[in-house]
Amino acid sequence: MNRVFNFGAGPSAIPLEVLEEAQKNLVDYKGEGLSIMEASHRSKMYDEVHNEAISLMKELYKIPEDYDVLLLQGGASLQFAMVPLNLYRGGKVQYVDSGSWSSKAIKEAKVQNLNMEVIASSKETTYDRIPADIAFDDDADYAYITSNNTIYGTGYKSFPDTKAPLVVDASSDIFSYPVDWSKVDLMFAGAQKNAGPSGLTIVIIKKELLDRAEDSVPTILKYKTHAEKDSLYHTPPTFGIYLLSLIMKWLKENGGIEAIAEKNEEKAGVLYDAIDKSNGFYVGHAQKESRSLMNVSFNIKDANGENNAELEAKFVALATGKGLIGLKGHRSIGGLRASIYNAMSLEGVQALVDLMELFQKENS
Amino acid sequence: MNRVFNFGAGPSAIPLEVLEEAQKNLVDYKGEGLSIMEASHRSKMYDEVHNEAISLMKELYKIPEDYDVLLLQGGASLQFAMVPLNLYRGGKVQYVDSGSWSSKAIKEAKVQNLNMEVIASSKETTYDRIPADIAFDDDADYAYITSNNTIYGTGYKSFPDTKAPLVVDASSDIFSYPVDWSKVDLMFAGAQKNAGPSGLTIVIIKKELLDRAEDSVPTILKYKTHAEKDSLYHTPPTFGIYLLSLIMKWLKENGGIEAIAEKNEEKAGVLYDAIDKSNGFYVGHAQKESRSLMNVSFNIKDANGENNAELEAKFVALATGKGLIGLKGHRSIGGLRASIYNAMSLEGVQALVDLMELFQKENS
Repeated sequence: MNRVFNFGAGPSAIPLEVLEEAQKNLVDYKGEGLSIMEASHRSKMYDEVHNEAISLMKELYKIPEDYDVLLLQGGASLQFAMVPLNLYRGGKVQYVDSGSWSSKAIKEAKVQNLNMEVIASSKETTYDRIPADIAFDDDADYAYITSNNTIYGTGYKSFPDTKAPLVVDASSDIFSYPVDWSKVDLMFAGAQKNAGPSGLTIVIIKKELLDRAEDSVPTILKYKTHAEKDSLYHTPPTFGIYLLSLIMKWLKENGGIEAIAEKNEEKAGVLYDAIDKSNGFYVGHAQKESRSLMNVSFNIKDANGENNAELEAKFVALATGKGLIGLKGHRSIGGLRASIYNAMSLEGVQALVDLMELFQKENS
Repeated sequence: MNRVFNFGAGPSAIPLEVLEEAQKNLVDYKGEGLSIMEASHRSKMYDEVHNEAISLMKELYKIPEDYDVLLLQGGASLQFAMVPLNLYRGGKVQYVDSGSWSSKAIKEAKVQNLNMEVIASSKETTYDRIPADIAFDDDADYAYITSNNTIYGTGYKSFPDTKAPLVVDASSDIFSYPVDWSKVDLMFAGAQKNAGPSGLTIVIIKKELLDRAEDSVPTILKYKTHAEKDSLYHTPPTFGIYLLSLIMKWLKENGGIEAIAEKNEEKAGVLYDAIDKSNGFYVGHAQKESRSLMNVSFNIKDANGENNAELEAKFVALATGKGLIGLKGHRSIGGLRASIYNAMSLEGVQALVDLMELFQKENS
């Protein structure tokens, strides 16, 4: 097989060792005579997978005892609705608008007619930074941020201090660095970037927040429902959870979150260095102090400093031909984007950087 | 490999050919150099899978043009909430209570404080039948039934005539027989019995019902959101949909829904015959006129006609040892249950019947 380097934003690369293990067991799981996806979610065979996924997440991510880890469905888009349904108490809620996904969460707060304030935004500078001086009110029902902005390639270097419960959409950087849990009350993420296939959602929630939902909230949309049943209230996405368990084992075998964080710093460093050394041929979208370690969004410029869409398209085509895929930027800002999640190797980033240098020589 | 016969109620057996095809392509999808679960949901590679799954469902199930087919998440349990959120118009809704899953749907209607009536129930006879003489009011906002009752092993032989839109929870019998769409306005099903792995939900909805939801319903919970975006409003469970596409191809190669319906009649016939010929050693839970073709729930009786839990446990252990798994009945009624969905072969049913006959000889 000629395995590609997959720079796609999501669903995205999964470690090869994980895929190979899943492949080996796909038809006959560990000699049981059936696939794990054919097993009852009440079976011993599946139960071990389920519990291992949760316990490894707690161990590697150092999640404190007073948090529950829930395995849900519906992606971040359902969380945009579930967060207010579970945490809003008729007071006010405050959001930071740092990109498209924050905007969608804000839109959903409006759909539910919450008393909602956007307390900081970087929309006016095309979301090229995390807004500065974020100050949430102490008495907000919750405070809401998006830790990493997949499209614009920005991320928080540290989370704001809040008295109000802090909700973090970590869909595109979960498990990529150690979290200071003293600052976070609820974190959620779709699995499809750093934790598995699409269709699985991880919610890490402080237990004291479980009792807030009104009775009229549908049972399936209450976090408490899932916390009380260890995420087995209804049939969970068992195959996705199996892959999550394999990815957690892979993380552990590779030194855990601290080691992957170092590797992520190194990978991003190599790529941002290449951009910064290109004398303006490549220009990053994000301000330096807000640069994401997961998504590197950049443009190719012409001699006048304008985006050169033609060269960008040429680069994407060239890269695709060489097995570096998923580099086209999101349609909202165009250009190029390299998503370098946990499963992307330094070798892959180096291949990209080598191609960028060659391309610049031949096209500038 | 010593493949088991999997009689589990769900997640349940998937055709071996489907698993083998998925295994072959798991690491390297058709030579593309990545797994289908690593592919962007906006990629050409995934798009073909997505469209094929939907078009094959429409073709094989003969779904009329004025229906949309949606690929969602959250299982039947989320549909219990989404149905009223999308279809209730402040009038009244009417439900038939034919088992545990109907009861859960009814409970959710109560959570949402709907004006709800249970117009027929078989609860008093431990759900051993589909209630007779179901008559929905013409002016109900919707009428609700569960086509097959997984736990009690009962199913409708035909759907009631209604003027009100008929909602059918077909979680445990979707794609197992041809549907008279003139009677059905919305059908939903979790995929994990007849259509794929858990974590994928299929909704087939008449287009004229898409406009009913109030603005305040969360965007992700409106059917219209998904219909307008061809089930790509957000990242769908791509790997589950890939398996759905393979299962639809398998169905087509095996003669389609009409052929599988005949096979299902034959399989169920063999098993019910064995029960009926056992002189009261095996006794089915369902009344004959309500017998499910998907789930056969039965007991082993002692000489006094009482359930013999000891022999039932002995049978389950014996069967498991011989590679016939998942036969333990649901805890709510105990006994035995053989789930014989589309993917169960006649050979598997015959192996079960042979064991039942042997067991009776040795234990009566």
